[in-house]
This record gives sequence, C-alpha cells and structure tokens, in this order.
Amino acid sequence: MKILITGAAGMIGRKLAERLAKDGALNGRPIDAMILTDVVPPEKPAGFSGKIALRTDDLPAPGVAETLIAERPDVIFHLASVVSGEAELDFDKGYRVNLEGMQHLLAAIRAQGKDYHPKFVFTSSIAVYGAPFPPAIHDEFHLTPLTSYGTQKAMCELLLADYNRRGFLDGVGIRLPTICVRPGKPNKAASGFFSNIIREPLAGHEAVLPVKETVVHTHATPRAAVGFLVHAAGLTREQLGPRINLAMPGVCCTVGEQIEALRRVAGDKVVARIRREPDELVIRIVAGWSERIDAARAKALGFKAEETFDEIIRTHIEDELGGKIAA
Amino acid sequence: MKILITGAAGMIGRKLAERLAKDGALNGRPIDAMILTDVVPPEKPAGFSGKIALRTDDLPAPGVAETLIAERPDVIFHLASVVSGEAELDFDKGYRVNLEGMQHLLAAIRAQGKDYHPKFVFTSSIAVYGAPFPPAIHDEFHLTPLTSYGTQKAMCELLLADYNRRGFLDGVGIRLPTICVRPGKPNKAASGFFSNIIREPLAGHEAVLPVKETVVHTHATPRAAVGFLVHAAGLTREQLGPRINLAMPGVCCTVGEQIEALRRVAGDKVVARIRREPDELVIRIVAGWSERIDAARAKALGFKAEETFDEIIRTHIEDELGGKIAA
Repeated sequence: MKILITGAAGMIGRKLAERLAKDGALNGRPIDAMILTDVVPPEKPAGFSGKIALRTDDLPAPGVAETLIAERPDVIFHLASVVSGEAELDFDKGYRVNLEGMQHLLAAIRAQGKDYHPKFVFTSSIAVYGAPFPPAIHDEFHLTPLTSYGTQKAMCELLLADYNRRGFLDGVGIRLPTICVRPGKPNKAASGFFSNIIREPLAGHEAVLPVKETVVHTHATPRAAVGFLVHAAGLTREQLGPRINLAMPGVCCTVGEQIEALRRVAGDKVVARIRREPDELVIRIVAGWSERIDAARAKALGFKAEETFDEIIRTHIEDELGGKIAA
Repeated sequence: MKILITGAAGMIGRKLAERLAKDGALNGRPIDAMILTDVVPPEKPAGFSGKIALRTDDLPAPGVAETLIAERPDVIFHLASVVSGEAELDFDKGYRVNLEGMQHLLAAIRAQGKDYHPKFVFTSSIAVYGAPFPPAIHDEFHLTPLTSYGTQKAMCELLLADYNRRGFLDGVGIRLPTICVRPGKPNKAASGFFSNIIREPLAGHEAVLPVKETVVHTHATPRAAVGFLVHAAGLTREQLGPRINLAMPGVCCTVGEQIEALRRVAGDKVVARIRREPDELVIRIVAGWSERIDAARAKALGFKAEETFDEIIRTHIEDELGGKIAA
C-alpha cells in the first residue's frame, strides 16, 4: 500500500502522516511507502519503517501532479490548500492552488489509464455553505459559498464526483467543520478565537473573545479530523453511492457552552483568562457562517467526532499539553 | 448598449438575437451593437439597424475571449455549450468548452479592470440536479449532477457567483428546464421525445413515445426561454442578492397530460400519430431526471413561463408553424 499526502506539512497533514506511520497499515493493508508533499518541506513522521519520500512541490506547476501520480499511490489524501483568508486576498493564487491543483491531480490520474484506480480523499470545508441557513444544515442543503475558498472547494467537490462517476477513481470529499482546538500560536483567521479561548487559557495566557457567547458553531478536534480522513479512505463505492461529498459531524455548541466546558475541565482560574473585547469585523464575518451541521449521512457511514466540548478540551490536553494545564 | 451573445447560432441563441433585433432595446436602452459568435457562422437577425459583428470562434482557444471582451459589451448572454450527450461522450471537449470557455470569458472581464462591469447572463440547466429528488425541487436543493454536462454547468454557476460577489460583474445564472417544443428535426437526445411527440404529429408525421405516460417533467417553450434571458438581463444586484443562480419556472406535467393537451389543441387524428415503443435505455436515463421544479424564487423575481401545456403547444403552432396544423 502506497500513500500520497498533499499538504503534508500542514497541521492536519502532519498529524495524518504521524497516525498512518503509527498504525503502519490502512484499510487492513500494510503501508509500504508514503509520499509526503507540500510547498514547505514536510517532516518525516516518527517510527515509520517503510519507504518515504519527502517532497517540496508547487502542486499546480506543470508536471508536478504527473510526477506524483506516476508513483501510482493506492490512496491519495489531498489536503493541499491555500486557506480561506489568503484565497480571499489573492484571487489568482486561490484558484491556482485550490482549483487547478486539484484539476491537475485528477487529470494525471485519468491519464494513467484504466488499470489505475486510486482512492482519492479530498478535504473540503463547511465554507461551501453560505448564509442564510436552516436551523441545522442537512445533507441536501445547497452550496452557496460566500468566499472564493468555499467556491473553490465546492467546484472541486463537483469535479471529484464526476471523476468518481466516470470511474477514473474512487472519490470521497469530506467537509471538515472548524478544527478546534487548533494547536500553535493564535492566528488572525476570523475563526481563530474558537481555539484561542481554550488553548491560550490552558497554557496560562490571556485570550480575547471578540463575539457574543450566544454564537453557535460546529467543532471537531484535529484527532477527529484525522479519524475522518482515515475512515473516508476505507469506505467503498457501494457504501457512498453517487453523493460522495459529505459534511462531517462535530460538536455543535455556543461559545458560552465552550466556556462552561472549559470551566468544568480546567476550573475558574483558567476561564478568568478569557477577556471579552467585541470586534465588529469578526462579529460580522462569523454571522455569515454555518452554525449547526446535521451530518446525518456521515454519522450513518460511521464517521465519529467528539460527543461533547468537554471531550474536545480533554483531547487537546492529552494530544498537545502532555496532560498538563497551566496553573 | 452593446450586446454579446455566445452560442448565437444555436436554437435559443438565434431566437434571442431575433428578439433583441425586433425589440431594438434592452432594459430600456437602445441596442447600438450586437456581437454574435458561435463555432458555426451565426446568421444576421432580421431588421436590426445597429452595428453587427458575426463571428465564428472557438471560445476556449487562446485570445478569443479577450478579443470578444475587448469590445466591452454591456450585456453578455453566454449560451455557448457542448450539449449533454456530447459532453458525456467526449470528456475533454465538454470541460474545455463548457468550463474553460466560461473561465476564459470571466478572466477576460476581470482583466479589463474596475471601470468595466458588464451584466453576465449564464444559461445553466436543470441537469445540475441529480436523483433522488424531493417531490418538487425547491430553491435550496443541492446540486449533485449525474452527467459531466451538469457538473460543468454547476461549476460555472459557482464561479459566476464568486465573480459576482467580488464585484467583477453583475451575474445571473438561469437553469433552463427542458425546452419544449424544440423546432427542427427529431434528434437523438434522450429528452427529444418530449418535443417529438408534439412537433411531429402536428407536422403530419409519426412520432415514437419511448417512456410511460406517467413520466413527469418540467417544460418551457423556446419563446419562454428567450423571455427568461431578457428578464434576467434586467434584474439588479439588489433584486438577486448573493444567490444569483436559480431554477426557471415551467409547466410540470406528465407525458399523458402532454398528450391530452395535444388532443385538446389539435384533435384525435393528430394524437393518433404517436406510437408507443418502450425504449429501456431512454426509460432508465429519464428516471434519473428531475421531475417537478418549484422555481419559487424565479417566479417571485418575475420570470414567466407558460401556464399550461396547451399554451406550450399553441405557442409552437404560432412561432414555428405559422398557425397551421397538418390535417
């Protein structure tokens, strides 16, 4: 079993490579080789005994996708993506990386001919949805993205479904909810505060809450996201049917409920590190975001997220803080 | 007012050019110039006194879209498209013409810079929908096309909405229902019988009905389709809001109801020219097609189709048969 991961230096890509290295197998078959590629050099995951290629590539550049696919990976995890904010600021770069990168990969697969038929796991996003929303976003709700990033993801989903239908590959597209708690430094993404208000207080730092506590959102941990990817790779054509793009489950809760979970898990002193500082820009951006995601099909297909926000926090403490909370 | 029509030699494109030539104005402004382009030479519409350019172009070829857009048309009707059957048989050609053609047009518009901001009317199709369907397809039903043609149309819709949102143009995408009665010879399109069973008997010829009379479908005449295009060109950003792609109305009825309408309009002798000859392939294809289209938003925005199938038949007799039915 040979695996290709694009965007392998990103947060989820790194964790996926580590998980696969640790498992040593996927879909019950041993992993002999991994190709990890990204625009910045990917790291070698610990403990992997198979063959590994660490590549620094500009995916949409001529010939790159062809070179990667010439290795005939059995499973492709396509995570490489310009993020939402950057795709909005740099229109051309967003379409080049997010749409053309995907188009090149798919065309390279098709060009290999009929005896090559990989599993293709595409990471989409809940950014494919655009307000106004129903009380919960169900599996048949239309995609009307309000960002270029969401548009590119939705276009890629359509393209993947057509390649799947035509039999060039076995595709599955998974719409990740907001990943929380994101490890690392606070960033300027409008969604950053969902993680900041948990991660920073747990590490002994102050965090700013720019929105009201009534804001509702859907969250899953990095560990759950990696679980979605691995689970997606194991689904068959028969299980998925023709609608291969689907929303992933997550914990739907208010910011107030996030904070109460933090209090239960870590205590009042940690919660006291959250500072309310309304930010009109963030408030306006967040108002356009999806709130509750139903994800009935994904759950029926066996995708599993955390059950409670308490569990999300505990997973973060285990995976990122070695079990320790700053006093 | 300068107008560009791509696909101007097609059935709808021709009728649109004729209608605009006859009206001499669009959105209350006189039409000074029309650019008609297609892969086969478009015809000059009768009675147009303005400047006219008749062009034979391969739209996705390098430089073509740029040349067309350099003329800075105020309104663009983008009808050029490889049809459903051809896009399914020739994968590359379908994506090249239907997706890349659109991408080139949009990129050329953006390249003109901020002082150019045309109205862009895109003809999409109900092929963007894929079975299984709700009892009636409502305006928030997701797009899960089951053909490459439908995929390309859905991708173009997304792209158009993003260009609209970013302010590069004023876009509107209209999903045409099945056009009935299509003039001309019977063709091999799976949907051809919907028109054949009306047009051929009215012209004194036999027609084959390959499906059951219980099949439900949504229809609008070529005249109504041209009306949709003209109406779409007059809608403002404010009227449309961010969801600029919408299903058009039509007459939803069974094949049996079509035949009864034909009987009311033209009599038993004409209806007797319909021969039942079940075709398993057509039956299977049609089973995957959308049945009832709700089109509530389009109706609220003032788009008008025929009210009854009788009216559809009468419109055909007026527009194509000079008011005469073959005895």
